[in-house]
Amino acid sequence: MYKIVQTNEGVCAPQGFFASGVSAGLKPNNALDMAFIYADTLCDVASVFTTNKMTAAPIRHFRTKGEFQTNFVLINSKNANAMTGKAGIEDIDEILATLPQEVHNPVMSSTGVIGVRLPKEKLIEGAKLFDLSKKEPHKAAQAIMTTDSFAKEISLRVELADGGSFTLGAMAKGAGMINPAMATMLCFITTDADISKEKMQEILDETTKVTFNAASVDGDTSTNDTVMLLTNKKSAAFHEEGFREALHTIMRKLARDMVRDGEGATKLVTYEITGAKNDHEAEVVAKALSDSLLVKTALYGEDPNWGRIASTVGASGVEADESTLKICFEELCVYDRGVNYFDADMEERAAKVMQQSEFTIACDLGIGEGKFTAFGCDLGHEYIKINADYRT
Amino acid sequence: MYKIVQTNEGVCAPQGFFASGVSAGLKPNNALDMAFIYADTLCDVASVFTTNKMTAAPIRHFRTKGEFQTNFVLINSKNANAMTGKAGIEDIDEILATLPQEVHNPVMSSTGVIGVRLPKEKLIEGAKLFDLSKKEPHKAAQAIMTTDSFAKEISLRVELADGGSFTLGAMAKGAGMINPAMATMLCFITTDADISKEKMQEILDETTKVTFNAASVDGDTSTNDTVMLLTNKKSAAFHEEGFREALHTIMRKLARDMVRDGEGATKLVTYEITGAKNDHEAEVVAKALSDSLLVKTALYGEDPNWGRIASTVGASGVEADESTLKICFEELCVYDRGVNYFDADMEERAAKVMQQSEFTIACDLGIGEGKFTAFGCDLGHEYIKINADYRT
Repeated sequence: MYKIVQTNEGVCAPQGFFASGVSAGLKPNNALDMAFIYADTLCDVASVFTTNKMTAAPIRHFRTKGEFQTNFVLINSKNANAMTGKAGIEDIDEILATLPQEVHNPVMSSTGVIGVRLPKEKLIEGAKLFDLSKKEPHKAAQAIMTTDSFAKEISLRVELADGGSFTLGAMAKGAGMINPAMATMLCFITTDADISKEKMQEILDETTKVTFNAASVDGDTSTNDTVMLLTNKKSAAFHEEGFREALHTIMRKLARDMVRDGEGATKLVTYEITGAKNDHEAEVVAKALSDSLLVKTALYGEDPNWGRIASTVGASGVEADESTLKICFEELCVYDRGVNYFDADMEERAAKVMQQSEFTIACDLGIGEGKFTAFGCDLGHEYIKINADYRT
Repeated sequence: MYKIVQTNEGVCAPQGFFASGVSAGLKPNNALDMAFIYADTLCDVASVFTTNKMTAAPIRHFRTKGEFQTNFVLINSKNANAMTGKAGIEDIDEILATLPQEVHNPVMSSTGVIGVRLPKEKLIEGAKLFDLSKKEPHKAAQAIMTTDSFAKEISLRVELADGGSFTLGAMAKGAGMINPAMATMLCFITTDADISKEKMQEILDETTKVTFNAASVDGDTSTNDTVMLLTNKKSAAFHEEGFREALHTIMRKLARDMVRDGEGATKLVTYEITGAKNDHEAEVVAKALSDSLLVKTALYGEDPNWGRIASTVGASGVEADESTLKICFEELCVYDRGVNYFDADMEERAAKVMQQSEFTIACDLGIGEGKFTAFGCDLGHEYIKINADYRT
């Protein structure tokens, strides 16, 4: 039917997309802090934004545009342009007005400190350094980083049986402040698939729910979260199942990368919840576990303290009972419907599972058929260090 | 009308109550780990328990008793007797059956590690050390501590205009795992006020909502939370307003002590939320702030990062808007309905406020009349140290 092939060209992988990053002097030491994505034809856009009521200016700016096509996304790090009122939106208009004439209907995206106006002049000067003929996706991915320790990119080509193919490319940033409802998380996905705007939005919504919205670093939701998907349809090819699978693979990979790169995180934990009353209750449990400070510190301590897991399940508000609950570290079930297998030997084996950098904690509630999988990380000293004085 | 006088006799302050603590060998180094409260006549009991579905055995045991009077509460630390199934309840019955014949309808309360059977023999031996004629409230308060760094006690006498008086005494424990819905938090209050069981339960419910349930250390809710209020009515005196005020003072003080003593906490912060759509939404905001990792780490870093406060308000799901929001550190308003006063001078002054060990953060949402006050603490390295390996 189709084959998915991984490539290494980030957002420049699909035909007709260009990108790069420059230094506008927002970050110290001439680090890259401003990126663009440019397409040589107009694109349809699908998007998912934060649910935070203090929506940042770039998102409010985007929403004023109504139905539109664009060929340009400007992104800066270091300043979120949030809590900046009307002036924040006017700043965006002023900056975008200085872009070259090839640019149509540009949009902007920002990440960084909240409550400070954009350094408009620096951004205008920075934009002058853009060379729209460049295909430097890795520079773009670096420029959007804040506390990220590595750039997050992926591109996939979907090869169809009839010889046609289309491609998706993506970059993302996000480390701290990531939570199930998406937080200081930016993700830009480009494609040349011949997909309608409506279908693209539908698939993006569905995929966001089980990828980015299933990922949690610290349970906080930012003012700026954005997932944007642009298509120029240049491949003239499309296959719905192939597109869905490729998009899911991309967003799942980036979501897991974000959690893995969570501020101070040393472990990526998958919470597999089954047997809940329904899928919603399974999601509530998965998120309660991935957000629990007591569970996160136990992970950091590599301490198989299953009692904290049981307690968190019980505290999450969903239907649960100790006589039907089952808790396993990977294949190792320490508690099974009232029977406690946690002796010294089991403890040692469970601790070994937790010494890995990636593992699964499975909870079967034994109530119904509901299930959900979420991704979380541990909470260690680095998180405190990074966040006790991020602004300065 | 009435006068409230503070005394220092803990749960032994009201007439006819006795208490002490012994070492049953649950804690190392012969530390006190088992306490009793005994009354020489039967008491009515009001209670509030955890909402956690994995309710610990002592609470399930209590609930099987239906309507009853008692004169004895046995409390142990170090083992929560939670996730122990039917056997956990049978263990309680066996232990309580060994108590002396003066004891009627005894109840039990436990705190500590989850998922381990009680060391029954040790507790039975420990109970033999109880001397029911002792009035040693401070020993009792020490015996119920787990990671607490200080014992939490208070007693108040309410003196009425007609020369009558009644007394309330209390002890509590709780440090980590405290959250708005009460967690690993035990509180025992004794009184000789001539109050009916129904009225006592009504006032206890109302007071819990604005004291213990407004206090958060880490957002986790335990399997064992208990507030128990016992009256022997011996004073033959009562004054509803006086009783309410005394109980509120006691529970507020103990709740604040618990937050102040939160694992690794260095600051006690009061969140005063006003102007929300309704009281419920104000409570949601107050709890979102007191639970936010980003806010808590900023407190620890003494960093007046008001953007994180704004973002957390926005993420809490309540009605809110940047054009009506106001954020103040004590009297210092850094952001007021769209106007950002946060310059270098303001930053320095706000940082000074945060250097105090206790201060208030006030948020006026500017939407309606809803208000709520919550207590929270910061999150520092000590929390991680304590919780990364508590069990071992």
